[in-house]
Amino acid sequence: MIKAGIIGASGYTGSELLRWLGQHPQVKVEFLSSRTLGGKKLADVHPQWAGWAPWSYEPQDLAAMARRCDVVFAAVPNGASMELARTFVEADCYYIDLSADFRLRDIKVYEQWYKQAHTAPDLNAKAAYGLPELFREEIKKAKLIGKPGCFPTGALLALAPLAAHKLIDMSQIIINAMTGVSGAGATPKPNFHFPHCTENVQAYATVGHRHTPEIEQGLQLLSGSGAVQVTFIPHLVPMSRGILTTVVCRPLADDWTTAALIDLFRQYYAGEPFVVVLGEDRLPQTKAVAGSNFCHVTVRYDRRVGRIIVQSALDNLVKGSSGQAVQSMNALFGLPETEGLMVPGLLP
Amino acid sequence: MIKAGIIGASGYTGSELLRWLGQHPQVKVEFLSSRTLGGKKLADVHPQWAGWAPWSYEPQDLAAMARRCDVVFAAVPNGASMELARTFVEADCYYIDLSADFRLRDIKVYEQWYKQAHTAPDLNAKAAYGLPELFREEIKKAKLIGKPGCFPTGALLALAPLAAHKLIDMSQIIINAMTGVSGAGATPKPNFHFPHCTENVQAYATVGHRHTPEIEQGLQLLSGSGAVQVTFIPHLVPMSRGILTTVVCRPLADDWTTAALIDLFRQYYAGEPFVVVLGEDRLPQTKAVAGSNFCHVTVRYDRRVGRIIVQSALDNLVKGSSGQAVQSMNALFGLPETEGLMVPGLLP
Amino acid sequence: MIKAGIIGASGYTGSELLRWLGQHPQVKVEFLSSRTLGGKKLADVHPQWAGWAPWSYEPQDLAAMARRCDVVFAAVPNGASMELARTFVEADCYYIDLSADFRLRDIKVYEQWYKQAHTAPDLNAKAAYGLPELFREEIKKAKLIGKPGCFPTGALLALAPLAAHKLIDMSQIIINAMTGVSGAGATPKPNFHFPHCTENVQAYATVGHRHTPEIEQGLQLLSGSGAVQVTFIPHLVPMSRGILTTVVCRPLADDWTTAALIDLFRQYYAGEPFVVVLGEDRLPQTKAVAGSNFCHVTVRYDRRVGRIIVQSALDNLVKGSSGQAVQSMNALFGLPETEGLMVPGLLP
Amino acid sequence: MIKAGIIGASGYTGSELLRWLGQHPQVKVEFLSSRTLGGKKLADVHPQWAGWAPWSYEPQDLAAMARRCDVVFAAVPNGASMELARTFVEADCYYIDLSADFRLRDIKVYEQWYKQAHTAPDLNAKAAYGLPELFREEIKKAKLIGKPGCFPTGALLALAPLAAHKLIDMSQIIINAMTGVSGAGATPKPNFHFPHCTENVQAYATVGHRHTPEIEQGLQLLSGSGAVQVTFIPHLVPMSRGILTTVVCRPLADDWTTAALIDLFRQYYAGEPFVVVLGEDRLPQTKAVAGSNFCHVTVRYDRRVGRIIVQSALDNLVKGSSGQAVQSMNALFGLPETEGLMVPGLLP
Repeated sequence: MIKAGIIGASGYTGSELLRWLGQHPQVKVEFLSSRTLGGKKLADVHPQWAGWAPWSYEPQDLAAMARRCDVVFAAVPNGASMELARTFVEADCYYIDLSADFRLRDIKVYEQWYKQAHTAPDLNAKAAYGLPELFREEIKKAKLIGKPGCFPTGALLALAPLAAHKLIDMSQIIINAMTGVSGAGATPKPNFHFPHCTENVQAYATVGHRHTPEIEQGLQLLSGSGAVQVTFIPHLVPMSRGILTTVVCRPLADDWTTAALIDLFRQYYAGEPFVVVLGEDRLPQTKAVAGSNFCHVTVRYDRRVGRIIVQSALDNLVKGSSGQAVQSMNALFGLPETEGLMVPGLLP
Repeated sequence: MIKAGIIGASGYTGSELLRWLGQHPQVKVEFLSSRTLGGKKLADVHPQWAGWAPWSYEPQDLAAMARRCDVVFAAVPNGASMELARTFVEADCYYIDLSADFRLRDIKVYEQWYKQAHTAPDLNAKAAYGLPELFREEIKKAKLIGKPGCFPTGALLALAPLAAHKLIDMSQIIINAMTGVSGAGATPKPNFHFPHCTENVQAYATVGHRHTPEIEQGLQLLSGSGAVQVTFIPHLVPMSRGILTTVVCRPLADDWTTAALIDLFRQYYAGEPFVVVLGEDRLPQTKAVAGSNFCHVTVRYDRRVGRIIVQSALDNLVKGSSGQAVQSMNALFGLPETEGLMVPGLLP
Repeated sequence: MIKAGIIGASGYTGSELLRWLGQHPQVKVEFLSSRTLGGKKLADVHPQWAGWAPWSYEPQDLAAMARRCDVVFAAVPNGASMELARTFVEADCYYIDLSADFRLRDIKVYEQWYKQAHTAPDLNAKAAYGLPELFREEIKKAKLIGKPGCFPTGALLALAPLAAHKLIDMSQIIINAMTGVSGAGATPKPNFHFPHCTENVQAYATVGHRHTPEIEQGLQLLSGSGAVQVTFIPHLVPMSRGILTTVVCRPLADDWTTAALIDLFRQYYAGEPFVVVLGEDRLPQTKAVAGSNFCHVTVRYDRRVGRIIVQSALDNLVKGSSGQAVQSMNALFGLPETEGLMVPGLLP
Repeated sequence: MIKAGIIGASGYTGSELLRWLGQHPQVKVEFLSSRTLGGKKLADVHPQWAGWAPWSYEPQDLAAMARRCDVVFAAVPNGASMELARTFVEADCYYIDLSADFRLRDIKVYEQWYKQAHTAPDLNAKAAYGLPELFREEIKKAKLIGKPGCFPTGALLALAPLAAHKLIDMSQIIINAMTGVSGAGATPKPNFHFPHCTENVQAYATVGHRHTPEIEQGLQLLSGSGAVQVTFIPHLVPMSRGILTTVVCRPLADDWTTAALIDLFRQYYAGEPFVVVLGEDRLPQTKAVAGSNFCHVTVRYDRRVGRIIVQSALDNLVKGSSGQAVQSMNALFGLPETEGLMVPGLLP
């Protein structure tokens, strides 16, 4: 059994990690830590565990954690994780980071977009980008995983087949995403107050969302192109879970058909259990993947204007976060990536 | 492995049965039948299965089904199941009915509330009422199970400790329930049209809802009282899943405290994995059990007016329907009742 | 023109008052005050006014307000209003209070349920209970109005015809209410955080909600009975606006019919423009009155169990709050009560 | 008083027209017609009118309508309106069409996108495009108005300042829109069934939505460019009302700032009461305009990638439909366009 720990299990990400690790046939959750909730029971914070959760929060003791665990998942704020990672890496304990601290290869890009110094460039240089469908070999060799952001996961899975085959103009990519409100975390704020949020749609960070450079980095790695430039606009929609991503781009050739594009996507994702390419008769919808680690993708060619439209749907807390982290753990430990993760979306 | 079949797998109940049976370590789903969808793939109807569901709908061939299966779940309309059951019972195949046809012991009560003749009174006489926490021994001996209605499950689990201990006036029980819209099924109708339903609350069937006699029957069996008379009022609230039930009743003694009542409930449900009695600091909420087979219950004593308030929360499609049916199957086959069912509620 | 002022216009109640007063043909809104927002524009806080609101927040200067206004609406917290009222009453300026400070005639009841001393018993003795359909004559003679709570408005309009005609057992009244989340105000809190609140139903304050004594007071005044005792249980449902109230009670006679009860209600509310009694073919729903000052009511007799069920639907921010306050102002100033208030519910 | 009639008042558009016309100080609603509801009361179909609506549905008698009315609003399906219009135009009765039949100047474009013959090209040639902010002079001279589609209204109000000043590359315009479900009408269908629709986001008609040529026509008229080509992708989000439109385009110059763009928009819309240009500190949100005739717009320049992002928010049933039709009527009859329409958005 893999002995696993979760640092910062008070929020949605931590609770969702427990949903997967707690059911995983090869994992024993050894401890949960929280700086503020030490001593409390899990069910006091997350009522879905009332009556059966065996776990309580322990105060944070990094050295003890590193001794007791084979792998640690860190669900802490951006900037806090780079400090924590060293203890675990040096103790030869796998470290899977759900913050943004180990996602960007270029420290300067991190510092520019996240407005803070990166204090662990040596660790960052060794980190793998934990999107198994696209960077599997890198993950298998790493000790430290930077789990991708929720939006980059949706955007990169949508664009990877086109980027990898160098089929599109990499400087003309427009990405609009619609996210559920759980992506903003568990802390109450005016914009996420139910009476304001229900029956409301609005964009945020229309210019300069921090996931933009992460999307561009992924596309550069996939395409080998240095001229990647995307516009990325996130929107908040009145639902709890899910991200729908709509990409518009321009193919280099003009003789595409929707059928040919779907074939291309199906070949690219052949053998991938979690990426499902839908056919011409169906479009991705977030509820079909809610609560699951699946990502539904499809593609259309609009011959009239010569543009390709790709869409993907995923659950921001699962394939966009905790599920993907567990999938990476499976890869790290040589398990089938599906282990403990094959659950259908909760529809209706 | 238990070989299982599902009759009528086109709706929400059938899809939800697959969510549980498809993951169950001791079950192989042998076939799905549908009168109208024969030949279609499951994922054509339920998109959460796209990419990995091994199942297609077969046309309905009762004799073949009875040969191939150890147990059949019937998710067909009221009135249709009583006809189907005989084939399976005679072929020695367990039959778990999710309609209302085998829930009421008194055929006359059925005919009065459901406005149709009951054509299988002999089978009805042998059916067990499939609410394991309250009628476990009966279930274990049966070949034919009438799965309880969603509202009766919530009301009976709330009232059972009080009724069984004969602590309340059985003629003064007021039950209000709030249900998600999935309880109305998958067929579009004006009242369930999104623009009408969102941001709206309304009652329906304020007098004479068909689950009323089923609640009264359960309370009579539990209390031994012949004077049971409940008022039951269901309300439609803008969510997909969940039932919150609020019961107000009058204790026969006036020296109760909330703490004593909670103790009583905890003792009554000791050892029951799916019924969780919450303490004085927390109230049941539907989202904490959404997608799960748990039922959260708590109780309060209002000394000022001398009344007891009991509340329960469950997912109408799981503990109120398919999950409870699988729990009964576990009991029938001598498995732990939790087998394949220990999944936390999907919160947030 | 009536010169009106609003104290505490930062929250939902204040903004809703502006929606009505700003459109009212006989009213000029003279000022908005706020302790914290002085100098800000209304549209900075309430974006629905962007581009056309003529108002800014002024700092709170009670004496100046009293000079400049004919009537002041106070949307301040419980406990804060009793202090403010005196300045206005002494300056001969009408004072319409939207807090709970002037709703309860018996100061001891106020102090017991609100856990604070009442420092203005002399003013309280002169205050009218601002529910025009039930206490119109009292309102017309008052200088100081205590606007009823949102739940008491729904409960009292549902029960008034039965109480006033002494037709029911006043000691056996069970009231369940389902409210939208705007009733909790504009301040973000964990229970009202969108991801937690959406697709969720829960009760709160199942025993001892502060609106209980206000409901009982109203029923005592209407019925003349000293033995009134109600159970009142509020539930939070995932919508922004609206309260549906379901009352179960026991008639003293057993020869009622639903038709006779509906007739009784229609006679009782004949001539009342805002209380609409629905017939046997329709039930109240909150969305039909959302954004409007209407209250829909209907009644059923359940002969089988000898109980009466009454339901009402209203918008907690309008008929349950600001709209009712404006209706009272109309009565105070001798205007038709409908002036500025005849707007249909926003459906869909 | 203007005597007005509504043809096809059974759906959301008709009911919404009544909300505005019924309150309009210069209008008397002379009749409602419906092919299927003749004889029924309005409140039997639209419960928000229970208790006070003076109207009943009359059977459809075109000649009588034309005699009795000064203006008729037609809320009938695409294809049905072109037949009806002639009677009214010939009788010198203004005809405001809410279908798509008189929106496209080029009959061939209509026939290609709507897949049906246009049988009234002579009338179409005389119709004005009823978007007052952009085509006011044309409207004032017309007898027949084609009310714009909901999506084109949002897209054109967002793009008009840039198109009219010829500031952008008209061949590189990407428009994503997110609409509430009321845009799909009042007829229940599986995709709009509450349990499927809640907590779900999906696109539809990703290629070839019928509003695309209408957007392109408007942009050609505004810019004078013949090379307009847009990609338009609509998404269904779980709310009843509202459209948020996000446009990405490329300016011809590269020295823009967000502040300069906002100034440009403010100058362009100076004096327009219903188009509100938000500043750098705020983004449009649908709930701020829900139930109102306002359209909130703002614009950003993304210097890094050299693209402009414009967003607009409106209520699809008001500024996107009935409110805009009433605004056009005001223009036709020489009234202030705001007459009867100055109502703030219903927030929260």
